[in-house]
Amino acid sequence: MFAVRSLLRSAHIKYALSAQFHATSQCTGAKVAIVLSGCGVYDGTEIHEASAILVHLSRGGAEVQMFAPDVLQMHVIDHSKGQPVEKESRNVLSESARIARGNITELTYLNAGNYDAVIFPGGFGAAKNLSTFAVDGKDCKMNKDVERVLKDFHTAGKPIGLCCISPVLAAKVLPGVDVTVGHEEEEGGKWPFAGTAQAITALGAKHTVKEVTEAHVDQKNKVVTTPAFMCETKLHLIFDGIGAMVKDVLKLTGK
Amino acid sequence: MFAVRSLLRSAHIKYALSAQFHATSQCTGAKVAIVLSGCGVYDGTEIHEASAILVHLSRGGAEVQMFAPDVLQMHVIDHSKGQPVEKESRNVLSESARIARGNITELTYLNAGNYDAVIFPGGFGAAKNLSTFAVDGKDCKMNKDVERVLKDFHTAGKPIGLCCISPVLAAKVLPGVDVTVGHEEEEGGKWPFAGTAQAITALGAKHTVKEVTEAHVDQKNKVVTTPAFMCETKLHLIFDGIGAMVKDVLKLTGK
Repeated sequence: MFAVRSLLRSAHIKYALSAQFHATSQCTGAKVAIVLSGCGVYDGTEIHEASAILVHLSRGGAEVQMFAPDVLQMHVIDHSKGQPVEKESRNVLSESARIARGNITELTYLNAGNYDAVIFPGGFGAAKNLSTFAVDGKDCKMNKDVERVLKDFHTAGKPIGLCCISPVLAAKVLPGVDVTVGHEEEEGGKWPFAGTAQAITALGAKHTVKEVTEAHVDQKNKVVTTPAFMCETKLHLIFDGIGAMVKDVLKLTGK
Repeated sequence: MFAVRSLLRSAHIKYALSAQFHATSQCTGAKVAIVLSGCGVYDGTEIHEASAILVHLSRGGAEVQMFAPDVLQMHVIDHSKGQPVEKESRNVLSESARIARGNITELTYLNAGNYDAVIFPGGFGAAKNLSTFAVDGKDCKMNKDVERVLKDFHTAGKPIGLCCISPVLAAKVLPGVDVTVGHEEEEGGKWPFAGTAQAITALGAKHTVKEVTEAHVDQKNKVVTTPAFMCETKLHLIFDGIGAMVKDVLKLTGK
C-alpha cells in the first residue's frame, strides 16, 4: 500500500505549506497576529479558545499568522491527571505549532508594523509561559517579546484582543487599561477564577464585569476582552463570547 | 501574592471537576461519546475538528464524554518542523486529555449501551494510533477497542459520526458502509488527500463525493461523514461541515 503511505507522508509537507488555513479569498484586508503559549489549558494555550478565535477570524475574512516564543514551558502538566510531569520539558513554539498545524513563527519576528491587530487566547500558558503571573501575581515578570508586542500595538493605536486569563498581560503592561475577566464573585462556582478581577485592579488596571457571551471594549486603548473559560458554562456560549471579541477587534482595525 | 497562586493552583482541580464543559442544562437527552487519538494533526487528533465537534454538540444540547485509548502514540511529531522527535514517546490518553481539559476516560470503558452516538474526529492519530492505516493502508490493523466500539454502536443501530481521515475506520470495520472523504481528484491541491477515496473502495466500502460544508449520511448504517481538513479551505467552512455532521448525528439519535 505504498500509495497510501507516501500520501500520508507527503501530507505533513502539504499541511505545513497550507496557506488556506491562515488566509481567505474574501479578505477584509485585516491582518491579525495570534500569540500562543503552548497547547493545552493547564500548561499552554486553551485549545478551544484558540480554535474559536481562528474560526471567527476566518469567517470575518481576516488573514492570520500565529506566533509563539521559542522558550521552554514553565512545566508540563499531564492533563489526564492534573499533575506536573517530572523531568519532562516541552518547547512553547513546538507545542503551539500543534494548534497552528505547523504554520507558526517565532514571536521575536512579530512586528506590529506588519499587522492590523493582535490577539492573545487564554490558558495557563499566558500566566506561566508568557509571564510569571501564575507564580508572582501582580509582581509578575513578562516575556520581553510579549511586553514589546503589547506596547508596540498599543502605541500604534492598533487593537489588542485578549480572553480568559490573558487580560492580566494587558493589565500589567498598559497602565490604566480597562478589561474584563467576567464576574468578581465566585457565585457558587460559576466564576471559579473571580479573584483574578482583584489582581487586575492590584495591577493598576480597571476591571469591568461582563457576561461570558459579551466582549468589553476599552475604546481609548483599543483593548477588547471576553471572559471565555473564566466562566463555568456551555462551550458554545464561550465560543459566542469569543466571536463578539473577534468582531470588535476587526471593527477597530477599520478594515 | 499567595491568593493568586493558590487560586491558580486550585484551578487545576476545578477544571478537572468541570461538568459544564461536557453537559448542558438544556439537554436534548442525547448522550454522545467522542473518541480522541492524541492532540495535534500530525500525530494525534486534529484539534480544530475536535473543538468544532464539541461546540456544535454543546449548541445541540448534547451531553458529552470523551474517551481515548491508554496506549503510546505511534510517534511524536514536532509540529513546528513536521518531523518525528527521536526517543520521545507520549501517551494517547494523556495527550487527548489536553483537548478534553482533563475530563477523559480510558476507551476500554466506553460501552455503547450508555451512549446514543459516537463521534471520531480526524487527524493522523486516527491512522496512526487508532489503526495502522498510515502504515498498512487497506491491510491496516485496528485498535481492538476502536473496532469493538464501532461494531457495537453499529449493531445497536446507534449513529456514528466521523470526519477527515476517520471514515477509513468505519470503512475497515463495517462492510459496505458508504462514506465521504470529499473529492476523488486533487484538483490542483484543493483536495491533497484525494487518494484516500480509492483506499476507501479498496477496503470494500463505498465512497460518495461531497463538498467540505456538507455531511454525507449512510441511512442504512447510520454513519455520518464530512471531509473537514481533507479539503484545503477556510476554517469556518470546515467548521460548518462539521456542524452539518453533528446535526445529522443528533437527528439520527431520535432525541
